[in-house]
Amino acid sequence: MNICTYSYEEYLHLVKSFHGTLAPGLLIGGFIVDLAMKHLPEGEFFDAVCETPVCLPDAVQILTPCTIGNGWLSVLPFGKFAVTLYEKYSGKGVRVYLDTKKLDAWPEVRDWYFKKKKKDQQDADALFAQIKEAGHRLLGIQQVQVEPEKVRRRKMGPVAVCPVCGEAYPTRDGDQCRACRGETPYKDARVLDAAP
Amino acid sequence: MNICTYSYEEYLHLVKSFHGTLAPGLLIGGFIVDLAMKHLPEGEFFDAVCETPVCLPDAVQILTPCTIGNGWLSVLPFGKFAVTLYEKYSGKGVRVYLDTKKLDAWPEVRDWYFKKKKKDQQDADALFAQIKEAGHRLLGIQQVQVEPEKVRRRKMGPVAVCPVCGEAYPTRDGDQCRACRGETPYKDARVLDAAP
Repeated sequence: MNICTYSYEEYLHLVKSFHGTLAPGLLIGGFIVDLAMKHLPEGEFFDAVCETPVCLPDAVQILTPCTIGNGWLSVLPFGKFAVTLYEKYSGKGVRVYLDTKKLDAWPEVRDWYFKKKKKDQQDADALFAQIKEAGHRLLGIQQVQVEPEKVRRRKMGPVAVCPVCGEAYPTRDGDQCRACRGETPYKDARVLDAAP
Repeated sequence: MNICTYSYEEYLHLVKSFHGTLAPGLLIGGFIVDLAMKHLPEGEFFDAVCETPVCLPDAVQILTPCTIGNGWLSVLPFGKFAVTLYEKYSGKGVRVYLDTKKLDAWPEVRDWYFKKKKKDQQDADALFAQIKEAGHRLLGIQQVQVEPEKVRRRKMGPVAVCPVCGEAYPTRDGDQCRACRGETPYKDARVLDAAP
């Protein structure tokens, strides 16, 4: 049993190294991305959509060329455990999701997914064993037609210096940057003498 | 000259492998993360804020334990070239940014950053050489107090089966999932016979 070009054990190693922990969602995510890769529509370039920011984007980033920073991976805030890989120009895609109808055969996975047990009540060994045993059998697969303009990040456009903070920002945001317009998450900021 | 625990050449290799291309933003991003790591406030656990989704999040994901999927990296839509690393509990942080006041000494970097030249007019060799030569000297550094609740993703909360699509979704989104409520980026979806 492989996850894309890796053995299952190699994939676990990559997950630990990149994501920090062997999260159940990332193990299922490995099978999700693997199944999607096996059903790619024709074409040369693929972008990815991940329908939750939790765990799953890291499976995509580990296993495909799509990352947050290069813009080929879009993350939607739907809280749904699904990944779509689609041909960049045509929008033709394949969507793989965790199929709730199939979970009764794997009760530890079901209870984890529906949060029926607190973390300290979970039998982690049984959960990991069921994920590995079930593999693709937890999943459903759909053909989809993606509307790329609904998922791709907008081009940044022209850049100018913000008259308040003196840093560069996209002028589409108005006459000052969004941080200076009140969206900053910092309570105070003070330039360090350590500036090089 | 190192980028965190890597030599500059090792870092270039990692960038190519993870991000796909040697993007100028990711090279500067390496210096940004490196400088921030050198000025970490005291504490055991750090989270990251990246003030743009373009390129820079990948420098954080390559060089720190913080990723999109594990939630330790938050991406803000400010279009600003800055990364903050902050102590998870106290919010004490260090913010490193590209300092526009320092760019005149590195004209290729300045012209790239302010988009003064089209891609085919850029002298890529000169740009890369100036980035490498300038390193930390392109950057400014600030002490900041982060308000973590403004940047961290919300807990997903209880999960139920969406009565429309039959997939699991967070009940905080209402009586059906956001995709079924009209936010789907797919024009049509059809279950494949290939479902395992």
